[in-house]
Amino acid sequence: MENINNTIEPTLSKAPPLVSGGGGGSTIAVFAPATVANVVCGFDVLGFAVNEPGDEVIMRMTNKPGITISKITGDDGRLPLNPAKNTVSVSVQHYLESVGRTDIGLDIELHKKMPIGSGLGSSSASTVAGLFAIKTLLGDETDAATLLPFAMKGEEMACGHGHADNVAPALLGGFVLIRSYEPLDVVRLPHPAGLWCAIVFPDVDVPTREARQIIRNKIFMKDAVTQWGNIAGLVSGLFMQDIDLIGRSMQDVLVEPVRSMLIPDFYVMRQIAMEMGAVSFGISGSGPSVFAFTRDEETAKRITQKLQQHLTGIKIGSNIYVSTINDAGPRVIG
Amino acid sequence: MENINNTIEPTLSKAPPLVSGGGGGSTIAVFAPATVANVVCGFDVLGFAVNEPGDEVIMRMTNKPGITISKITGDDGRLPLNPAKNTVSVSVQHYLESVGRTDIGLDIELHKKMPIGSGLGSSSASTVAGLFAIKTLLGDETDAATLLPFAMKGEEMACGHGHADNVAPALLGGFVLIRSYEPLDVVRLPHPAGLWCAIVFPDVDVPTREARQIIRNKIFMKDAVTQWGNIAGLVSGLFMQDIDLIGRSMQDVLVEPVRSMLIPDFYVMRQIAMEMGAVSFGISGSGPSVFAFTRDEETAKRITQKLQQHLTGIKIGSNIYVSTINDAGPRVIG
Repeated sequence: MENINNTIEPTLSKAPPLVSGGGGGSTIAVFAPATVANVVCGFDVLGFAVNEPGDEVIMRMTNKPGITISKITGDDGRLPLNPAKNTVSVSVQHYLESVGRTDIGLDIELHKKMPIGSGLGSSSASTVAGLFAIKTLLGDETDAATLLPFAMKGEEMACGHGHADNVAPALLGGFVLIRSYEPLDVVRLPHPAGLWCAIVFPDVDVPTREARQIIRNKIFMKDAVTQWGNIAGLVSGLFMQDIDLIGRSMQDVLVEPVRSMLIPDFYVMRQIAMEMGAVSFGISGSGPSVFAFTRDEETAKRITQKLQQHLTGIKIGSNIYVSTINDAGPRVIG
Repeated sequence: MENINNTIEPTLSKAPPLVSGGGGGSTIAVFAPATVANVVCGFDVLGFAVNEPGDEVIMRMTNKPGITISKITGDDGRLPLNPAKNTVSVSVQHYLESVGRTDIGLDIELHKKMPIGSGLGSSSASTVAGLFAIKTLLGDETDAATLLPFAMKGEEMACGHGHADNVAPALLGGFVLIRSYEPLDVVRLPHPAGLWCAIVFPDVDVPTREARQIIRNKIFMKDAVTQWGNIAGLVSGLFMQDIDLIGRSMQDVLVEPVRSMLIPDFYVMRQIAMEMGAVSFGISGSGPSVFAFTRDEETAKRITQKLQQHLTGIKIGSNIYVSTINDAGPRVIG
């Protein structure tokens, strides 16, 4: 039974210890991971981080108070350099205000290493990388969980709602349950060590807002009971390291039937993956990325290659990734 | 981390080993425990067993094929002696047919040690006691979980639907998740050793069928999300032995608001219990019994006494019970 942390109760750090002489010259590079939210039967409450892909932020302290963004790569020009409109700088600004350090100057470079709008928590990875960079630069030794409310501010800006099911696993690593938003109550869950994740991003456009709007407001109680039996089974399987139970539990009778319509050949891809030995298959976040759990790297690789071939056959480009679950969250890379 | 069993996949035992010379004279007495189903946020999928109260069955092998019920006590004459209409004999008959032993004769005495229609799994306790008695008499050494489908037949007869959230914990002991009914997938969950249960049965009539009918068929997705965040939190808390998390997670926004209307002073009783130090408070099954988790026996005792006083004050009689969680399920008592 590994990786069981105590429940994390985010509380804002008002006065963290600061590095002496902070205010000019220091530079740091941080990686933060992509994340799979919802995890099939955990709509809006579950997510996990992967080792690949992820985004990188290079942050440099300057002598002029305020935040600038000098460079963004990998976004095809889609993300704003205006620090008032970029989720990374906006989140960092909220953090600086909270710790009373709006006096310092920062320059940010954002290097997108994953597709935007992929359903892999792209904005979350960038935001978490930025927040972890400033926390580290300032020598703030409080628990990373204290950054969560600031990261949620970034999500609010990116997709209209301050969800935590991407930012929480990106920040904490591993499997994360958001039990409640008011008050924010986040629980880090264990997982079997041998679980591999195969991810395929079909290059089609599924905006998060639209993917949310097509979900039904009212549902049948009996379907909800099925769903919460399954999430309880998934959580049990994670604690018990029972991959069969995890697989049996990863069924979604409420959201997938609707959102799968926005993903080309979703059910064909699922059938391919399951026949090739996947433990489970589903939509990552609001899509269009899909993911499968497998018991080994080789099966994950074969599945991603086969699904990419299939998508090529219907003239859809794709990115594919194979990874174990990332237990560390963001990390300093330079 | 105690009491973690592997997932139990009930499969029917077609040819259990039989005791030599079975068929006349052997007598056995079995106790089976009361159970709390739903457990606030786990409507229709969670339940746990308690050590007190429970029902007793005395079963005697006879030389005349067929089942008779010679005595029922503690039921105020409400339960049928006709073996075709009693849940105990009907379940036992299904079992005998399954193992090909309709040739044997059985006489049953049923001693009800808890109120009927209390929301404490009264019919389940009787049924499980009967099934465990015949299994033991026949020397059937298959896992007790194989009795579950027969016990569910009894539930179907008792309340119109073959639910497992009382019979499964009565049979297996401990905390049980019914992840799925088709196929039947039952998971035994661990729990903190120091969890006590205070139970109060207010002596008012809440028929199970009516308590089910008043529940809404359609619900809001956002409420369902709240509910499955909570059940995931409760299951996590059980595995992590985190009583605070268990308490925070035991909130029900869907069923309790409706069913509480059938229970006199439900919210008053909750306030009393919580102010006296309960970890959580809610309806047991479909009510009218209510229960509180506490961290110690003394608090559980004080809460039951105070709630009984309160009910007496509004001219409602009550039964009260204080117990730890029963991890053993049914047991032979003679």
